[in-house]
Amino acid sequence: MDARPIGIFDSGVGGLTVASEVIKALPNESVVYFGDTARVPYGSKSVEIITKFSRQIVRFLLSKDVKVIVIACGTASSNSYTILAQEFDIPFIEITSPGVDDCAHVTRNKIVGVIGTEATIRSGLYETLLKNAIEGAQIYSKACPLFVPLAEEGWTQNTVTRLTAEIYLQELLDKEIDSLILGCTHYPLLLNCIRDIVGSVRIINAAESTARKLKQFLRENALENTGSPAKSHAFYVSDNTNKFNRICRLALRQEHEAIKVDIEKY
Amino acid sequence: MDARPIGIFDSGVGGLTVASEVIKALPNESVVYFGDTARVPYGSKSVEIITKFSRQIVRFLLSKDVKVIVIACGTASSNSYTILAQEFDIPFIEITSPGVDDCAHVTRNKIVGVIGTEATIRSGLYETLLKNAIEGAQIYSKACPLFVPLAEEGWTQNTVTRLTAEIYLQELLDKEIDSLILGCTHYPLLLNCIRDIVGSVRIINAAESTARKLKQFLRENALENTGSPAKSHAFYVSDNTNKFNRICRLALRQEHEAIKVDIEKY
Repeated sequence: MDARPIGIFDSGVGGLTVASEVIKALPNESVVYFGDTARVPYGSKSVEIITKFSRQIVRFLLSKDVKVIVIACGTASSNSYTILAQEFDIPFIEITSPGVDDCAHVTRNKIVGVIGTEATIRSGLYETLLKNAIEGAQIYSKACPLFVPLAEEGWTQNTVTRLTAEIYLQELLDKEIDSLILGCTHYPLLLNCIRDIVGSVRIINAAESTARKLKQFLRENALENTGSPAKSHAFYVSDNTNKFNRICRLALRQEHEAIKVDIEKY
Repeated sequence: MDARPIGIFDSGVGGLTVASEVIKALPNESVVYFGDTARVPYGSKSVEIITKFSRQIVRFLLSKDVKVIVIACGTASSNSYTILAQEFDIPFIEITSPGVDDCAHVTRNKIVGVIGTEATIRSGLYETLLKNAIEGAQIYSKACPLFVPLAEEGWTQNTVTRLTAEIYLQELLDKEIDSLILGCTHYPLLLNCIRDIVGSVRIINAAESTARKLKQFLRENALENTGSPAKSHAFYVSDNTNKFNRICRLALRQEHEAIKVDIEKY
């Protein structure tokens, strides 16, 4: 057994949807969450800057003695995971490949859509992974830069969000995709709206897929906490904003006090 | 005469609308622009973080021997100007009060609207300044967090932007405002759309007001470059993104190569 906590980080508050799935799937485990709310969003930034910010966060989480780090940010997963995994001596779970694996199981016609931030889509990682996982797959990807600010505004189902989703998703529907990966952790907050537009297309929520993958990883590596259940989780941010509390209530249906950290020191 | 350049900074690319007005109003002057594209946006961050980031940028601009610094960012102007002006030995022009002065000249019914980012509106600075400048004024302010991502997506006039603007602006129109201050430097990029919705309401573009105020300040303090015209401007960013080039073309109608700076070193 290993009672050390699980580290989870994101560029901001979106990763709380992953934390929520992890807490649900692994009720015995403690979670240490870090959200880089001072420098959010990562989605429009360069690989170099995203990796620099991610390194600082990994150093912070290591100082909290975590046993594994979940990169609960589509942008950091697709741009910086490989570099981080080489540089640090700790296992990482990124959120891209679990969704790809789940997608490989559900697609029938092998025509797959992926949506995410500009940086996630630009990285092309989903495309590469999906082509490896699904022989003969046709992949159509689309950056949806307005989805994060819409989710954070709390406009999860109004006309503006529906129209925006229609504009973004129509070109994927025109390609007759039968499955759609939500490649950004904010997007599950818009799930109802996206589901209304894509109809019978199967939606793969990367947050759910990642929590399942983490559970399997802990079991296979004897890293589970088999002792007494976790007593508490800890939430850290680089800047205190009301947004953390708002999204925390939305994603975890709980109140948590976030502690502020000067992340540039790490 | 003083041939040193004018420093202008913003959290990202929005301040390019101010740079554009400054270059138009003062064709003899050189401009050194810094856009904090690695840490944009400031609008949802705390006063403490906004001030910390602004200090680093001021130190960078001082290293370029500027004669005056224009805070071309509504959020930094309303949250950090007073602190910066106390801490640094260089004149600052912020973008809040020039718009307020212009507004005082155009309002007839003294019912004034202000729109800006969450941080700008939360600071309450516009309200205070407007109440001092216009006796008996009624001020109604509204944060419009989706305007910046919409402008950056290039959706300057489509249905989504029009609907969003209607939602944000209707409550100000219901108060019968006769003038509206655009308290964020991105908003002039949505000018046509905003104008369509507010009809006869007078729009005060803070970028224009600020360039006029800067011109007056240079003249009154004998800081103008009365020698040969400026040969060039310099543009610096904390992260290279296509966005800079896109907005540069939109705001300045020119191409400029931006140089990348590690701003956390300042």
